[in-house]
Amino acid sequence: MTTEARLDGAASTIGRPTPPLNAREKLTGRALYAADFKMPGMLHLKVLRSPHAHARIVSVDTAAARALPGVHAVLCGEDTPDRLTGVHRKQHRILATSKVRFVGEEVVAVAAIDEETARDALDLVRVAYEPLPLVRSMDEALRPGAAEVHENTGNLSIEYNVERGDVDAAFAGAALVHEATYETTPQYPGYLEPMATVAWVDGDGRLVVRTSTQSVFLQRNRYADALGLPVSAVRVIQATVGGAFGGKVVEECNSLICAWMAHRLGRPVSFVNSRLDDFLGARSSPAERITLRMGVDAEGHIIAKEVRILADCGAYEGLATHVLQVSLVRSDNMHRHLRNVRSNGRLAFTNHPPRGAVRGFGGPQAAFALNSHMTEMAQALGIDSVDFMKRNAVRAGDTSVHGFELGSAGLAECFDQVSEAIGWAAKRERPRDRGTKRRGIGFAGAIHVSGNREMGNWDGSIVTARVTADGRVTLSTGESDMGQGAYTMLAQCCASELGIPVSRVTVLPTDTDLSPYGHGSIASRVTILAGNAAIRAGRAIRGRLLALASEVLGVPEGDLTIAGGEIYATSTSPNRRLTFGELSRLHLYRHGGEELRVTATYDPPTFLAMSRPDQYGNVAPGYSFAAQAVEVEVDTETGQVEILATVVSDDCGRALNPLAVHGQTCGAAAMGIGWALYEEMKFEDCRLLNGNLADYTMPTAGSLPHIRSEIVESMEPNGPYGAKGASETAMLPGAAAIANAVHDAVGVRIRELPITPEKILAGLRARASADAAPGASHA
Amino acid sequence: MTTEARLDGAASTIGRPTPPLNAREKLTGRALYAADFKMPGMLHLKVLRSPHAHARIVSVDTAAARALPGVHAVLCGEDTPDRLTGVHRKQHRILATSKVRFVGEEVVAVAAIDEETARDALDLVRVAYEPLPLVRSMDEALRPGAAEVHENTGNLSIEYNVERGDVDAAFAGAALVHEATYETTPQYPGYLEPMATVAWVDGDGRLVVRTSTQSVFLQRNRYADALGLPVSAVRVIQATVGGAFGGKVVEECNSLICAWMAHRLGRPVSFVNSRLDDFLGARSSPAERITLRMGVDAEGHIIAKEVRILADCGAYEGLATHVLQVSLVRSDNMHRHLRNVRSNGRLAFTNHPPRGAVRGFGGPQAAFALNSHMTEMAQALGIDSVDFMKRNAVRAGDTSVHGFELGSAGLAECFDQVSEAIGWAAKRERPRDRGTKRRGIGFAGAIHVSGNREMGNWDGSIVTARVTADGRVTLSTGESDMGQGAYTMLAQCCASELGIPVSRVTVLPTDTDLSPYGHGSIASRVTILAGNAAIRAGRAIRGRLLALASEVLGVPEGDLTIAGGEIYATSTSPNRRLTFGELSRLHLYRHGGEELRVTATYDPPTFLAMSRPDQYGNVAPGYSFAAQAVEVEVDTETGQVEILATVVSDDCGRALNPLAVHGQTCGAAAMGIGWALYEEMKFEDCRLLNGNLADYTMPTAGSLPHIRSEIVESMEPNGPYGAKGASETAMLPGAAAIANAVHDAVGVRIRELPITPEKILAGLRARASADAAPGASHA
Repeated sequence: MTTEARLDGAASTIGRPTPPLNAREKLTGRALYAADFKMPGMLHLKVLRSPHAHARIVSVDTAAARALPGVHAVLCGEDTPDRLTGVHRKQHRILATSKVRFVGEEVVAVAAIDEETARDALDLVRVAYEPLPLVRSMDEALRPGAAEVHENTGNLSIEYNVERGDVDAAFAGAALVHEATYETTPQYPGYLEPMATVAWVDGDGRLVVRTSTQSVFLQRNRYADALGLPVSAVRVIQATVGGAFGGKVVEECNSLICAWMAHRLGRPVSFVNSRLDDFLGARSSPAERITLRMGVDAEGHIIAKEVRILADCGAYEGLATHVLQVSLVRSDNMHRHLRNVRSNGRLAFTNHPPRGAVRGFGGPQAAFALNSHMTEMAQALGIDSVDFMKRNAVRAGDTSVHGFELGSAGLAECFDQVSEAIGWAAKRERPRDRGTKRRGIGFAGAIHVSGNREMGNWDGSIVTARVTADGRVTLSTGESDMGQGAYTMLAQCCASELGIPVSRVTVLPTDTDLSPYGHGSIASRVTILAGNAAIRAGRAIRGRLLALASEVLGVPEGDLTIAGGEIYATSTSPNRRLTFGELSRLHLYRHGGEELRVTATYDPPTFLAMSRPDQYGNVAPGYSFAAQAVEVEVDTETGQVEILATVVSDDCGRALNPLAVHGQTCGAAAMGIGWALYEEMKFEDCRLLNGNLADYTMPTAGSLPHIRSEIVESMEPNGPYGAKGASETAMLPGAAAIANAVHDAVGVRIRELPITPEKILAGLRARASADAAPGASHA
Repeated sequence: MTTEARLDGAASTIGRPTPPLNAREKLTGRALYAADFKMPGMLHLKVLRSPHAHARIVSVDTAAARALPGVHAVLCGEDTPDRLTGVHRKQHRILATSKVRFVGEEVVAVAAIDEETARDALDLVRVAYEPLPLVRSMDEALRPGAAEVHENTGNLSIEYNVERGDVDAAFAGAALVHEATYETTPQYPGYLEPMATVAWVDGDGRLVVRTSTQSVFLQRNRYADALGLPVSAVRVIQATVGGAFGGKVVEECNSLICAWMAHRLGRPVSFVNSRLDDFLGARSSPAERITLRMGVDAEGHIIAKEVRILADCGAYEGLATHVLQVSLVRSDNMHRHLRNVRSNGRLAFTNHPPRGAVRGFGGPQAAFALNSHMTEMAQALGIDSVDFMKRNAVRAGDTSVHGFELGSAGLAECFDQVSEAIGWAAKRERPRDRGTKRRGIGFAGAIHVSGNREMGNWDGSIVTARVTADGRVTLSTGESDMGQGAYTMLAQCCASELGIPVSRVTVLPTDTDLSPYGHGSIASRVTILAGNAAIRAGRAIRGRLLALASEVLGVPEGDLTIAGGEIYATSTSPNRRLTFGELSRLHLYRHGGEELRVTATYDPPTFLAMSRPDQYGNVAPGYSFAAQAVEVEVDTETGQVEILATVVSDDCGRALNPLAVHGQTCGAAAMGIGWALYEEMKFEDCRLLNGNLADYTMPTAGSLPHIRSEIVESMEPNGPYGAKGASETAMLPGAAAIANAVHDAVGVRIRELPITPEKILAGLRARASADAAPGASHA
């Protein structure tokens, strides 16, 4: 009945480079992405998007489109459920009704027998618009008398005010106070696989959605809410995900439109974005203008901080409210001496496409401002900036100004690691270049959460496990693997507890009908939360196996050895070995036998800060840190920046799988470099001009330096074997590190991203004219 | 996040007609059968079957077939894994090698881009055969010097000998001893949906098989064993099943060939039987020749029984060994006074297509013989046959001759019910017809198991359950719903414990990766075993809900009422009601919260009789009984039998869902009538002549009488709410009831099925010539 390989005693893979469990299916082309699914009678969906950033919909004429052979449905906003949808505040229907608020807003959806017919049908739809005054920028948005994006509500989406300590007194007593303003630009998440979904109605009338997503359960809630269905009437199945980076969960409307159409037509519907559709349909990160005012005391300790942010969420707020909150306060928790904070954040509606969650979730914006700012302060103080940052870096055991309890904190070690690797000390001392190619070094640091108790008073994770008749272990979880290696991590944790190779563990695909509940892969939560649950599952199985083996062998559990998928009596009869498969079968095949299956839950000892008016509290079981150092060469004639070397150090607590950590670090750093130097969503009257990968210039392999990735293992007490999240933090410090290096190279401080040659040349010209002015001196 | 309907207090549906949960998907055409699945790159499989019943394969030339455009593979026996496959004894490879043993045996398999191409390719394959001497019948098979179906093993597959008590002494002391021989014919299972499978290799290299089956786990074991894979390298998913009747599990080779081809080619493969393929590829029931010798004492108690059976399993034995064992001994357990039994059963290999499990599993053959026999004995004794059978019928509390412990036994009540409903007393007394249309009545009774501890020392069932965020309950089981209503029964059991409507319960489709282990839907085991597990699951959820509600409401559990999907404090605050959805969310969304999910297992208190040399013991937690009465009209000129009325009574312990019980009873009775009167697999030199539904005349609606279905509720102590199995028993008594009625009508005793006009006319002629002989008198 079963064939069981005899294993050698398997050493734990914890801390050893471990290839992803699902690498093989991707390399062989067998992985099934959402666009690969075909269903009997499946229709193809295409969406007509608004060409206007702000306009009243006067009329929609779908007659000609409906008459096209092969077209099954041409539906507009009036056909959608008469209820608003949105992440927290609900602001629009599934398709636009009465007016459009951004270029790209979904106005008409067509379902046809193939993609070509659907596209042809879109050409036959006639929509008459009456243009309305635009809200072109967040400044314009908040001006009195501005046009309103949403009727009668003003253009202020949300305003946050936080104050702790005695800020004014602290500033008054500061040895140095520095204030400056920084601006960041939106970043498109830039995954390889555009959004894709196939949805249908099953035999019981339930809506089934197979989609590329970070969280099947959050998506299920979204569809159910938008369609007015109970959650159990909706099933969401994760297709293989070709990258997500925050863009494939909750906010996006593409899978929702597909789900609605399938539900309405009662037929399978496929919706695969073109790249332009994806640029228009995906949320980019919010543009933020950050004004920092910081005070340090005579010891170089940051003692006062005031943060003012104005952010542009575009036409709908989505998660941008939360992104702003993160930009506003999270980086305060990096400073160990800081107790006086005042923050004001305002989020403005404009007629830009909506912005929201992208990798780093508000952290990159804050890190750009903060690290640029602190570098300037260190210079003003005459302290080496590494020293300054380390002096202020939180340590394990600290409780930060907002209540973060740091069980581990390797920020200072990250600074040490990158400064040493880049040759900081030596390069700081070298003579300044005088030619047209000038080198400079810069660095920056950042904090990120591993988990975040904010979606109700639970931030846990559940892993179910069973032992198969041939001694393998099958795990199921509601968290997602989008390529980051979550399933491999789970297999490692469970296998390690059981002393079997990871190849003996299968992790089942995520599906709301079948998997235990999980918030999904957001907030860098999966390693710390699901990892702990997987360890608990492994221990529970181990306990059951040992108890049964003890009974069968007639030996106390303490005398048993468990290794290589076998259990034996260490001293008395080492040759009588019971395999996991034998024990699994024996567990069932006896009077009153039961299958060997366990459910393990881990909910961290964190606090639902959102439930307190002052939002004070320890929101995450662990906090990750990262630092990055770069050496650049700036061409003073062209303004071109070349990164000569970069080192990123990630305090992920413990690298359960260094291969995965390095992969995430390099990917995140590349994304940070792209945001700093190359990527810019260009708008003209709120219309995206470069919605394609030729004009929106994400860095290619050739344009990236070798990224040296280092790991700091701070051993988080709450972490599985000490681990924290490792997928987002390394995205944060890049932009500031480059800006600092550019300043080091040519003395030009770029406070507005991206760092373009034009801005550098303008800065050089400004410096030159300042130099030429009487009494000029360099800062 | 969730929408929860307010329910009225839901009364239990136990005992109330309840439409099947999956009726809607079938009625709307949305149910996905295996033939409905399309996969990217899917190939279509067709099989070349042997035209010879016994021949050596001299050569196979596949060159022309392989050269046909669109053909991907043309494989023969030598290409299959070099290991034998089979249910218990392994007797053949996946395709025939070296020789063929029946007409229809699978010789060559073709995979091509579509069915037409695959069929065309079959025409191009040249197989040279060297015919071997045929083994045409079981008598021929066991004759000395007979040709051998399997080399050097003789043609005796298995021989059983059972002896209990002092058989010779009992016969010696009997008031009446009667001996006669009966013959039965094979029956094709006759499901609407031919066998269909789609198989593929997933991204991890695992074999996935989506097939129409009664047991995903037994199929998984079969594929793994035949392909030499560990069971965890195989995943089996149940497609919607369009009827199975014993034919779609373990024995059939069609899904195995498809699975092997997909595994070998690494591509999706679909294999859908034509009806002829299905006739040739499916197992029919074994033909049996049953000699009964029975002795009764002066009180009309059966005190001695000798059974000799010779059965024909065709070319491969499969489950026919077990079918024979059932025919041989199970019906002995109907007789409460019987303590002396001698049985000899022999199973012979012939060159007929292999026979095995079909609804009733050996019971119909035995019931035909036994009830015919007992009716003759009653006549000989001058006792009314109802009285005779009731006098001998087991009662609750009895332990039978083979060790069956009868917690419930409604056999006598079944006899009462059908004899009263058919008007037995009055019709027995009416004057005999004298014209050419003569009426007669007959009846018969039968026993069947509900579960059977024979596949290892566990005959349990596992149900997992979770409560969704909106208060529905989702169940998962390894048992199958093939249309018999298993899922509806599970939903009823769980819903009843929770006081919610069945519409609030979802039962997930069966899948070896996702469902808990289960032997599947065989041996009428699901209601009694999985029903108990579902009750336990419901109770476990109920306990968790009440505990949490008690905590939240601050009221002892004893003061709580649970009704209509809500819990409230009965006396103190009946208006503060917690819905299941609220409680489910609260169970999770709190510090240390967990999802509300339970696993419940029920393993019955039965005995693994197969482990004892004498096979004595209580194998099932319950035994079902049935009786059937028929009134026929026989046309003495044509020999045609018309059933004027029939009543079937089923002791299913308790009818959890009378709609389903009546459905199963009517279907089983129709199948029994078909076997008795119409269905005959006609062979010429072991070649099936009528492998199609035009010539193999299953009864159509028009040819069936109204079947009156009655229920006896004997309240099985081991049963869920008293229930036992109800899907097979009613198949058993029909043939004998009809034979008895025919005898009653025209005095002709038919001891060989089917009961054809030719046999009746021959019987009438024989009677006429006997009448004409001097000194003749009627029995």
